[in-house]
Amino acid sequence: MLIGVELRACVCRDKDTCVYASTRSIRRRRPSRTEPRLLPPSATMSSEPPPTAASASPADELATDLSAATLSKKQLKKDARKAEKAEKAAQRQQQQQQPADAEDPFAANYGDVPVEEIQSKAISGRSWTKIGDLDAAAAGRSVLIRGATQAIRPVSKKMAFVVLRQSMSTVQCVLVASADAGVSTQMVRFATALSKESIVDVEGVVSLPKEPLKATTQQVEIQVRKIYCINRAIPTLPINLEDAARSEAEFEKAEQAGEKLVRVGQDTRLNYRAIDLRTPANQAIFRIQCQVENKFREFLLSKDFVGIHTPKLISGSSEGGAAVFKLLYNGQPACLAQSPQLYKQMAICGGYERVFEVGPVFRAENSNTHRHLCEFVGLDAEMEIKEHYFEVCDIIDGLFVSIFKHLTENCKKELETINRQYPFEPLQYLEKTLKLTYEEGIQMLKEAGTEIEPMGDLNTEAEKKLGRLVKEKYVDSTALLHFIILLI
Amino acid sequence: MLIGVELRACVCRDKDTCVYASTRSIRRRRPSRTEPRLLPPSATMSSEPPPTAASASPADELATDLSAATLSKKQLKKDARKAEKAEKAAQRQQQQQQPADAEDPFAANYGDVPVEEIQSKAISGRSWTKIGDLDAAAAGRSVLIRGATQAIRPVSKKMAFVVLRQSMSTVQCVLVASADAGVSTQMVRFATALSKESIVDVEGVVSLPKEPLKATTQQVEIQVRKIYCINRAIPTLPINLEDAARSEAEFEKAEQAGEKLVRVGQDTRLNYRAIDLRTPANQAIFRIQCQVENKFREFLLSKDFVGIHTPKLISGSSEGGAAVFKLLYNGQPACLAQSPQLYKQMAICGGYERVFEVGPVFRAENSNTHRHLCEFVGLDAEMEIKEHYFEVCDIIDGLFVSIFKHLTENCKKELETINRQYPFEPLQYLEKTLKLTYEEGIQMLKEAGTEIEPMGDLNTEAEKKLGRLVKEKYVDSTALLHFIILLI
Repeated sequence: MLIGVELRACVCRDKDTCVYASTRSIRRRRPSRTEPRLLPPSATMSSEPPPTAASASPADELATDLSAATLSKKQLKKDARKAEKAEKAAQRQQQQQQPADAEDPFAANYGDVPVEEIQSKAISGRSWTKIGDLDAAAAGRSVLIRGATQAIRPVSKKMAFVVLRQSMSTVQCVLVASADAGVSTQMVRFATALSKESIVDVEGVVSLPKEPLKATTQQVEIQVRKIYCINRAIPTLPINLEDAARSEAEFEKAEQAGEKLVRVGQDTRLNYRAIDLRTPANQAIFRIQCQVENKFREFLLSKDFVGIHTPKLISGSSEGGAAVFKLLYNGQPACLAQSPQLYKQMAICGGYERVFEVGPVFRAENSNTHRHLCEFVGLDAEMEIKEHYFEVCDIIDGLFVSIFKHLTENCKKELETINRQYPFEPLQYLEKTLKLTYEEGIQMLKEAGTEIEPMGDLNTEAEKKLGRLVKEKYVDSTALLHFIILLI
Repeated sequence: MLIGVELRACVCRDKDTCVYASTRSIRRRRPSRTEPRLLPPSATMSSEPPPTAASASPADELATDLSAATLSKKQLKKDARKAEKAEKAAQRQQQQQQPADAEDPFAANYGDVPVEEIQSKAISGRSWTKIGDLDAAAAGRSVLIRGATQAIRPVSKKMAFVVLRQSMSTVQCVLVASADAGVSTQMVRFATALSKESIVDVEGVVSLPKEPLKATTQQVEIQVRKIYCINRAIPTLPINLEDAARSEAEFEKAEQAGEKLVRVGQDTRLNYRAIDLRTPANQAIFRIQCQVENKFREFLLSKDFVGIHTPKLISGSSEGGAAVFKLLYNGQPACLAQSPQLYKQMAICGGYERVFEVGPVFRAENSNTHRHLCEFVGLDAEMEIKEHYFEVCDIIDGLFVSIFKHLTENCKKELETINRQYPFEPLQYLEKTLKLTYEEGIQMLKEAGTEIEPMGDLNTEAEKKLGRLVKEKYVDSTALLHFIILLI
């Protein structure tokens, strides 16, 4: 068992790249079987040692106290023996290394960049290539890339692979010790000793692999010439990204093979949100969310809607039915807007004809259904009607279809990424949305044995059932149809 | 003196076009001298009489009670005499009219549309032309338009002008009694008896005026064939739009001429926001606001930023220094986010590289400077820095210049509209933003006699002075320069 202690004292050189800006807690976790064995910190060649269990910061002491309180005596003894062994091994390794390092003619090609060198001291004029832009067309070119070390695979003393990740893209960097390339065995060791999720600059030449690469998004490799660590992550992170990115199918497959994979619980994910956000699915989810908003805005703007922002601190509840969050506004009672409804209507009355708003909506409901949230981002639209509310239906229809189309055509990579961790059926839709009258809907339910009062509301169960019935009746026989029903 | 009584009982046919959805109060106001004399309601030919002072709704009684309490006896007698006269005049007019109405062969070409006809009963297939789209190219075409009656000018029994407004556009509609056009004198009277801000459908033929039109935005006229009132406004609105749209220069000019124009106070504007929003300047302001947001998003999206939405209900203050609004979240203390800072940084740590947010920011500051607001819409951006914060400066620089350029090129109409009521100097900017070091700025202030501590903050006064100094030193000699200084 490993004790993952998160240290606030981590080498934090750049608040923008620091993993630990927002999280502070102490967790115990099992190491993943697929996690590479980490070298003891003293084996690294950092000019500035990464934090180790031996340092005596107050955070460490607290961690030791807390872990001592929760671990059994037997476990503590085990851990002590392990720590002793590791320390001896580290000492041995350090003794072996030091003379070699001193003699390395290529020492300038790797190392940790001192913190003072990366804090707005100079503009080098270098330009970093985006990992996502690396493709076969770049073969033979020398590039500089920056990314997080997602995987580090030592092959031999003379060879290693480092996979660098930037947002949703990953690329394999190859280190082969050779005097021609300026790569020493010490440099290979430096690379393999990097901790996962460290921020690293790599200079190298783009090459084409002999076989397609399965583990990275980019189908090229970088033949490393130089490698510098900008910001070293602590050796053991509270979340292993490989664990956090697994699908249910992977867990099942492992279980059938008698293996047990680490599951990252929801609490851990939320406590270390900045790390959990790095999983491919989470990278994709918020990009898709952004695209939904973009297309929502783009479509409505093209239909002469005006984007507005309405007050969220208001003096009375904006809608009946829903509970409000109450607060004091300069001593006067106020509440948070449950809806922009009133203000949207004022804008319409005010001659704006068509308006929309994208903004937070607050509902003090202690509910647990998937339809209610205390705080959510509302995509709201309001428009004048000339003569029939079908005019609104047509706008909504066109809006949804344009969003679906946009996501299908322009977010393929994101959708595939989510699909790998959370499989879903591909979205299909009718170009012209199906419209049913309320009577037709109720009739369909009646024929299927569910009686609804002629003017009554549909409850959740009846709505779901109607959805299934519509799917059965109107579905394309060869394709699954996702649909919107406008009950009119 | 007129007593403006706002009635909730107004003929409210469509909540989207109803003026009074949100306002409810009783106000006294002086009539504007430029306000056209309103015909007594009984002179209108509406099948459904608009609310009059003679109707006895509870709101009227309350209004009468309240006005009685605030008016002198003398005034009351005067008003009573006036009302008596008006009633007699109305009776006379009605007697003259009724036989004529009964004989009108063109009675079908005008009138009030019954409420039940416009509530999603049928789709006529008619299409309404936007008033803003009416130009010389449309001359000779028959069009259907819908708008609010901004001005009604009777010329004679046989001729009248009605100016219709739709958002920021206005067009002059001409009624000339003629059997060929199907326009009767009764129809002309119907049009002149419409109250201002009523919603009206006009069918007519587009024609070109002999001289340029000063009072309307569109340089064409509509020769009216049919006119129907969709929703009749009450005769006297709490705000006269002409009054609400005047510039200071107009007030001064009138004062010099010995005239006194009505000023609409801030309270009245806020109490009747839905009406005040209809002034040309207010129509322009929110459209420009929307364009600023659009360009902000467009520019940052083009620079690989991802739009996010961060929580507004949080468990602790997000920044030091500023006071927070506190509230209870399911019994637990919570507060409103003063800034998306922490969440933006988590997104950057989470691998998003560059993010932005447009959303509300809450600060419980009881401040009265123009720099602090309790609730405002924040345009926030956060990005990874590769080696120097100049990278951020460059993005901000490009962002502002692109917004300025976009507004200058694409919001000409809106800027001119605002300029008419609130004159401002045209925005000018450098394509490449001026950068000064902090030392240079302090030196400039020192030379001008203002001493600042070497590492001290600039106070508001010093900032303003520096602005003036920079303008003097770096300004184009022939043009006024608006600038951003990046103090670095």
